[in-house]
Amino acid sequence: GFATIDNHRQLRVGYPEVIYCEGKTTEQVKRIIEFMLTKEKNIIATRANEEMYKAVKEICEIAHYNKLGRIITIRKEEEKYTKGYIAIVSAGTSDLPVVEEAYETAKILGNRVEKIIDVGVAGIHRLLAKLDIIRQAKVIIVVAGMEGALASVVGGLVDKPVIAVPTSVGYGANFGGLSSLLSMLNSCASGVSVVNIDNGFGAAYNASIINKL
Amino acid sequence: GFATIDNHRQLRVGYPEVIYCEGKTTEQVKRIIEFMLTKEKNIIATRANEEMYKAVKEICEIAHYNKLGRIITIRKEEEKYTKGYIAIVSAGTSDLPVVEEAYETAKILGNRVEKIIDVGVAGIHRLLAKLDIIRQAKVIIVVAGMEGALASVVGGLVDKPVIAVPTSVGYGANFGGLSSLLSMLNSCASGVSVVNIDNGFGAAYNASIINKL
Amino acid sequence: GFATIDNHRQLRVGYPEVIYCEGKTTEQVKRIIEFMLTKEKNIIATRANEEMYKAVKEICEIAHYNKLGRIITIRKEEEKYTKGYIAIVSAGTSDLPVVEEAYETAKILGNRVEKIIDVGVAGIHRLLAKLDIIRQAKVIIVVAGMEGALASVVGGLVDKPVIAVPTSVGYGANFGGLSSLLSMLNSCASGVSVVNIDNGFGAAYNASIINKL
Amino acid sequence: GFATIDNHRQLRVGYPEVIYCEGKTTEQVKRIIEFMLTKEKNIIATRANEEMYKAVKEICEIAHYNKLGRIITIRKEEEKYTKGYIAIVSAGTSDLPVVEEAYETAKILGNRVEKIIDVGVAGIHRLLAKLDIIRQAKVIIVVAGMEGALASVVGGLVDKPVIAVPTSVGYGANFGGLSSLLSMLNSCASGVSVVNIDNGFGAAYNASIINKL
Amino acid sequence: GFATIDNHRQLRVGYPEVIYCEGKTTEQVKRIIEFMLTKEKNIIATRANEEMYKAVKEICEIAHYNKLGRIITIRKEEEKYTKGYIAIVSAGTSDLPVVEEAYETAKILGNRVEKIIDVGVAGIHRLLAKLDIIRQAKVIIVVAGMEGALASVVGGLVDKPVIAVPTSVGYGANFGGLSSLLSMLNSCASGVSVVNIDNGFGAAYNASIINKL
Amino acid sequence: GFATIDNHRQLRVGYPEVIYCEGKTTEQVKRIIEFMLTKEKNIIATRANEEMYKAVKEICEIAHYNKLGRIITIRKEEEKYTKGYIAIVSAGTSDLPVVEEAYETAKILGNRVEKIIDVGVAGIHRLLAKLDIIRQAKVIIVVAGMEGALASVVGGLVDKPVIAVPTSVGYGANFGGLSSLLSMLNSCASGVSVVNIDNGFGAAYNASIINKL
Amino acid sequence: GFATIDNHRQLRVGYPEVIYCEGKTTEQVKRIIEFMLTKEKNIIATRANEEMYKAVKEICEIAHYNKLGRIITIRKEEEKYTKGYIAIVSAGTSDLPVVEEAYETAKILGNRVEKIIDVGVAGIHRLLAKLDIIRQAKVIIVVAGMEGALASVVGGLVDKPVIAVPTSVGYGANFGGLSSLLSMLNSCASGVSVVNIDNGFGAAYNASIINKL
Amino acid sequence: GFATIDNHRQLRVGYPEVIYCEGKTTEQVKRIIEFMLTKEKNIIATRANEEMYKAVKEICEIAHYNKLGRIITIRKEEEKYTKGYIAIVSAGTSDLPVVEEAYETAKILGNRVEKIIDVGVAGIHRLLAKLDIIRQAKVIIVVAGMEGALASVVGGLVDKPVIAVPTSVGYGANFGGLSSLLSMLNSCASGVSVVNIDNGFGAAYNASIINKL
Ligand SMILES: Nc1ncnc2c1ncn2[C@@H]1O[C@H](COP(=O)(O)O)[C@@H](O)[C@H]1O
Ligand SMILES: Nc1ncnc2c1ncn2[C@@H]1O[C@H](COP(=O)(O)O)[C@@H](O)[C@H]1O
Ligand SMILES: Nc1ncnc2c1ncn2[C@@H]1O[C@H](COP(=O)(O)O)[C@@H](O)[C@H]1O
Ligand SMILES: Nc1ncnc2c1ncn2[C@@H]1O[C@H](COP(=O)(O)O)[C@@H](O)[C@H]1O
Ligand SMILES: [Mg+2]
Ligand SMILES: [Mg+2]
Ligand SMILES: [Mg+2]
Ligand SMILES: [Mg+2]
Ligand SMILES: [Mg+2]
Ligand SMILES: [Mg+2]
Ligand SMILES: [Mg+2]
Ligand SMILES: [Mg+2]
Repeated sequence: GFATIDNHRQLRVGYPEVIYCEGKTTEQVKRIIEFMLTKEKNIIATRANEEMYKAVKEICEIAHYNKLGRIITIRKEEEKYTKGYIAIVSAGTSDLPVVEEAYETAKILGNRVEKIIDVGVAGIHRLLAKLDIIRQAKVIIVVAGMEGALASVVGGLVDKPVIAVPTSVGYGANFGGLSSLLSMLNSCASGVSVVNIDNGFGAAYNASIINKL
Repeated sequence: GFATIDNHRQLRVGYPEVIYCEGKTTEQVKRIIEFMLTKEKNIIATRANEEMYKAVKEICEIAHYNKLGRIITIRKEEEKYTKGYIAIVSAGTSDLPVVEEAYETAKILGNRVEKIIDVGVAGIHRLLAKLDIIRQAKVIIVVAGMEGALASVVGGLVDKPVIAVPTSVGYGANFGGLSSLLSMLNSCASGVSVVNIDNGFGAAYNASIINKL
Repeated sequence: GFATIDNHRQLRVGYPEVIYCEGKTTEQVKRIIEFMLTKEKNIIATRANEEMYKAVKEICEIAHYNKLGRIITIRKEEEKYTKGYIAIVSAGTSDLPVVEEAYETAKILGNRVEKIIDVGVAGIHRLLAKLDIIRQAKVIIVVAGMEGALASVVGGLVDKPVIAVPTSVGYGANFGGLSSLLSMLNSCASGVSVVNIDNGFGAAYNASIINKL
Repeated sequence: GFATIDNHRQLRVGYPEVIYCEGKTTEQVKRIIEFMLTKEKNIIATRANEEMYKAVKEICEIAHYNKLGRIITIRKEEEKYTKGYIAIVSAGTSDLPVVEEAYETAKILGNRVEKIIDVGVAGIHRLLAKLDIIRQAKVIIVVAGMEGALASVVGGLVDKPVIAVPTSVGYGANFGGLSSLLSMLNSCASGVSVVNIDNGFGAAYNASIINKL
Repeated sequence: GFATIDNHRQLRVGYPEVIYCEGKTTEQVKRIIEFMLTKEKNIIATRANEEMYKAVKEICEIAHYNKLGRIITIRKEEEKYTKGYIAIVSAGTSDLPVVEEAYETAKILGNRVEKIIDVGVAGIHRLLAKLDIIRQAKVIIVVAGMEGALASVVGGLVDKPVIAVPTSVGYGANFGGLSSLLSMLNSCASGVSVVNIDNGFGAAYNASIINKL
Repeated sequence: GFATIDNHRQLRVGYPEVIYCEGKTTEQVKRIIEFMLTKEKNIIATRANEEMYKAVKEICEIAHYNKLGRIITIRKEEEKYTKGYIAIVSAGTSDLPVVEEAYETAKILGNRVEKIIDVGVAGIHRLLAKLDIIRQAKVIIVVAGMEGALASVVGGLVDKPVIAVPTSVGYGANFGGLSSLLSMLNSCASGVSVVNIDNGFGAAYNASIINKL
Repeated sequence: GFATIDNHRQLRVGYPEVIYCEGKTTEQVKRIIEFMLTKEKNIIATRANEEMYKAVKEICEIAHYNKLGRIITIRKEEEKYTKGYIAIVSAGTSDLPVVEEAYETAKILGNRVEKIIDVGVAGIHRLLAKLDIIRQAKVIIVVAGMEGALASVVGGLVDKPVIAVPTSVGYGANFGGLSSLLSMLNSCASGVSVVNIDNGFGAAYNASIINKL
Repeated sequence: GFATIDNHRQLRVGYPEVIYCEGKTTEQVKRIIEFMLTKEKNIIATRANEEMYKAVKEICEIAHYNKLGRIITIRKEEEKYTKGYIAIVSAGTSDLPVVEEAYETAKILGNRVEKIIDVGVAGIHRLLAKLDIIRQAKVIIVVAGMEGALASVVGGLVDKPVIAVPTSVGYGANFGGLSSLLSMLNSCASGVSVVNIDNGFGAAYNASIINKL
């Protein structure tokens, strides 16, 4: 075998293992999922391309693919959602792939989710107009590229935990998301923590743990 | 005036403004605190040196200084603690200044706190021996320098949110905390989010919001 | 001689040469100013320490020193100010040294100036409360450290040129001002241009040219 | 919807929203433009590929595409130009794509423009020969890759604001435009401010605000 | 000729020269191997693509290609293995290409090898379950991407030399393997030394020298 | 026109302008050469692809293309070579493209050249065996990737100027040639100066000036 | 307590815990050593300043301090040395502090050691003159700053494992040891592995494990 | 001994060994010079502080110290100068320490030298006014910090080899000389090669070799 599936994980951390498809062959992804299907648990495979999706579809009719978010989800357990919700706030249209990865992850993990998109700080009234729905969330994910200023502005307006996801949207001195990563790590607003560049999955996973506390 | 105190903050984000003393003169710190003392709210001043503490002590008898953590706290409100607690887990003795900053912040914000120190991954049995107390926390802060591996190991063993604080402990290819910052951002464990290098205050502030959800 | 004074500069670019004192000896600074005093033009010396100021004071009674801004100015020409004004907007108290450098520069170059300080994005209502005075300026300087988000927020609210000055205020992943520099260069607001980290002088010089167009 | 169009922007900052096409699908670009066409305002879409242009052309006959500059412009308002002009000065032939992006932007925003191209500092007489036309501009854009020295040289010869655009032209220790970005930020000439690497649009937008003051 | 084959190397360092195929043409690789085949020694060619393998196969029937590891090996000498073995421990399925490069190298150099794969620290029980086989090795190679924490954890559990290979597996703040490289260089466990990112060959070569001491 | 040809250059710096083809269209390259052909001077075009070569061949029969070195040369002047020669010393076969760019440049500029290739420090006897021919050169170019140690070793063995060219050969912590660039800049041998990564042209141009002093 | 001493370490990895004094107070160092003295094992404290040494001396007469190497050693166990020896080869006199840290560590761990210092590649005959003593070692430590070329040259001349220690000796583009770190990681010689910048302790610890295999 | 003096160097590379004092103790510097004084050759010690100078003075009356350049020279051989001269051209007064290091080195090595200082590109007429004396040099050293543009401008005006020395003069995005280093490496002028940041010694040593060809 090329994998040591972590079967205890559900017990230990409360969720089954998640498949990170980048750097795996389609064959490997398919066989890992084949094995996991025997467990009757929900399955998540991130960074999956369409070829992988097709291969999975062959062995699992109900596999669902979010193309923009590049994520496969398989719902084996009953749908059941939290009362509190996660707000996913994003800066621009180009950040949508990360928003979608976060959205699918949060949903399959059983969370209610509200998306508030394209409300970057260059036109701050757009954000202020949505403040109510953001403030009523139990936890907030902020997705932003370029200078990532949205995280600080949101962080200064709410009393809930903010999980910031820098994206690689931008060019030049963006250096693959570095500008928005550093920006978020240096946020002058205090309730902000940060995950890796473009890591919509990690943000949603984290938000889900908090939302269910 | 040299400051625009954010009086609304208590209402908006639930806590009053916190003073970051680095780059301010002793005189400035003293005058900001003088003004805030009129509000009967708890006060936090981070990165404060002893000279600043002495100046503050003159105008406020009950000011408390944690020398290792370089943090001044003034308790004006009644002591009242949460039921759930925050666990602060740290890798080595050299990380203690950051641990102390986090500890003082968490306490003044009204949280029960447990410290589990010097349990770095080079001797992993030390960590495993403390797993119970870590797992029962509502939220966990991991403080580690050098390669910051502790965050991933803890993240893989618990089902609670982990807030990782990279420290600047180390030398050479540590590059002022960069090694442990990048390490934590790339954690293969999913429930980990990260704050700035040496930002014990930010981690505790964040943990406090979550602990009180 | 250790210097080739650029006497034509006044003619060519409209202002005399400005002295950057860092890396010069007190003796050198003094002798350059001695020479320039023969020209009956205003004189600016940036990054000057107190020892340099004292040495200059000996040869020029009217030399003025802004200690926080570390800048010496000598007014030889008649005071005369522009009608339009430059707004200097800053994020936190720790950014004041850069604000002062910019302020002194703008004044000696003959500009009306308004300072709006400590209005960082963590408490955005502070900024919104000052919007009128900012919008009526002819050109705006934004001074901010940490994540430098203030530049984008201001840039999205005004129809005037914004000159952004990242400061080295911060620690850890701030990397000496890099976070706020990259942030400002990647601003999602379109009217923002950037000068070097902590370069209050350059921002004011630039703003002055624009203010006098 | 996948976008929150900022309709107020024209009022607030004087220009309508500009579309950044990178990271958006052709479908998204088309639909955003479709919506904006209902407003009878000029439209700018930067970083657009030919496929996007074709899609836009289908819904708008008068769409214009500058292939080198990768920019779509749609003129709905009457042509009307400023009296003062913007000079765009560039170092080498390889910098032309950025020059063209700046040129189209400046024109559609209503500015008179003069292009002075391929006058890099390796043959400084080429620049000196064009000094008159550069000096008479109201604001100057300097576009240069490699070591970006042109910005400093121009900055030392004029009394007008210089907006410097580093380009990613070069290789090796150019690091994607970093060399020329840092060079321009450290310019020893005082009237120079900088925008992001390859950001011809931002430079022109900025220059336009200044040109119209 | 385009090459100066180092014929003395076998004598000097105990092994013949190894071919690094990246940046060489298929023709060059083929001709170097053709020459080396006259020496009746084992041959290793790393970073070889399939086209190169086919070209080599034409001149050498027994050439063997490990596609995942991108490595060609030609066994001309008699098979003979060490008594002690090298353990190759890896974090995730995506690290397998580097594992395979190390594996093939170690085998052709005459070492017994044990592979323990997909035992990353996010599920540390997987590692603990294999501790016996790891501890009985004479030297241990640890292959890990993302945050590379596995090297420190293994290093703290064994009394044998650990050679750590950071991999470029990951994205965003991974910066092409930098996160895991810095992590391993800053390991708080003392018996860990490091080779270049993705350098499975170098790790195995090194381990082989040690295994044969 | 899209170019301002620097006709004075021959007079000023002794050589005509050289065309850097990267980032130019085939059409642009062709038209620049067409213009230069009217001058009866030798022509050099670096970083040229095969399509460009074909286009140039159409307008100039005698155009010569070195495919490995990606360089077009056109000899319009009489062949005439220096008495002293330039030695081009290189570390590995993968560095050959840079060697060839340097070689063609040096030849068309009228220099005698000796190539000593594949003599990297991993087998230092190969270098020592060629020491005579290296020492008798008037100026030495050292081309090396990976750790670039060859420059220091050669620099310590000769009394002639050494021009070091770091190459981007390598992977991982090579960071696109950074390792060998930094290595050469920090050379402990004193007679070594450095040009940009992969800049074979610049090294040869420089060596040619020195060789003709 | 402020420390969780790892008492099992002797059993698990064969050596007791080593104290890293940087970032610890003198008081902390003293108390950790006080505790460890009860175990009758050898003690090592690295990066110790003179004040720490004096404090330790008070509680332990036989404490030994190597001032250049900044290392305290306490020998409680009987002196007993290996038959094979470790060679420590260094480039320049400025690298001596790291050499000394490695030397003391290797000795207290029970190894025979030979020092071959100041044999950097700028004068390669110095190295060649010592080749015999280097080649007869069982394992070799190479200590070098600046461009770190010595590791590659030694690596190409021996058939023993080479542990390379980059030092921070140098300035400018040395960037605190980065040049020599990257150089060593990219070594074209195959038997070289690397530890952190200035980590003489780690190199010796590693070499000791290998020397005792 | 702590040093292996390279006595052959004079024979091999034409000059005796040069002492780099940084990181050496005063005692070490003194003893190395004591030994070298027995050889009746000129001696150079760079990066020497005043304490070192005093110690050397005790054993050698004729030792000469250039305080600004931090360099000790001892002339034991007869004064004799080349016919051609080296021009040292520098950008600003703050670059003088590097100029002086280069000057002393060039003189003691027997070269005629002309200094042209404070002629940075912000006032290019200052440079043009000195063009004759620069052009008549046999080799040119350009010393510049900040954006280092001077190297390109000079390089485009002369037909002699230019050795560029970036200096660490500047702040912020200068990053310790990185901006001017990258600038010079990417020079669009072709005859420019580069040495390490602040390496006035290396530039002069190099220039001297060329000047004497
Ligand atoms: N140690 C700290 N690290 C990060 N942020 C802090 C710290 N201490 C205070 N702050 C933040 O800094 C802000 C105050 O900045 P200033 O206006 O410059 O005093 C507060 O609102 C806090 O959110
Ligand atoms: N100079 C050194 N460099 C790197 N690691 C060290 C050094 N000295 C001690 N250590 C490691 O640091 C660990 C102790 O860390 P701490 O708990 O903070 O004292 C020890 O177990 C050693 O493995
Ligand atoms: N998009 C993602 N970003 C970061 N980590 C992920 C992602 N998807 C999955 N993971 C983590 O990667 C681990 C699997 O790695 P592997 O063994 O290589 O498949 C899982 O346990 C997840 O925690
Ligand atoms: N391969 C190369 N690397 C660096 N510079 C080059 C190269 N080829 C040509 N050049 C320089 O680039 C300049 C031409 O730039 P451009 O005006 O963009 O064609 C010439 O004057 C040369 O000095
Ligand atoms: Mg938008
Ligand atoms: Mg410890
Ligand atoms: Mg404030
Ligand atoms: Mg050109
Ligand atoms: Mg796995
Ligand atoms: Mg070879
Ligand atoms: Mg020496
Ligand atoms: Mg000057």
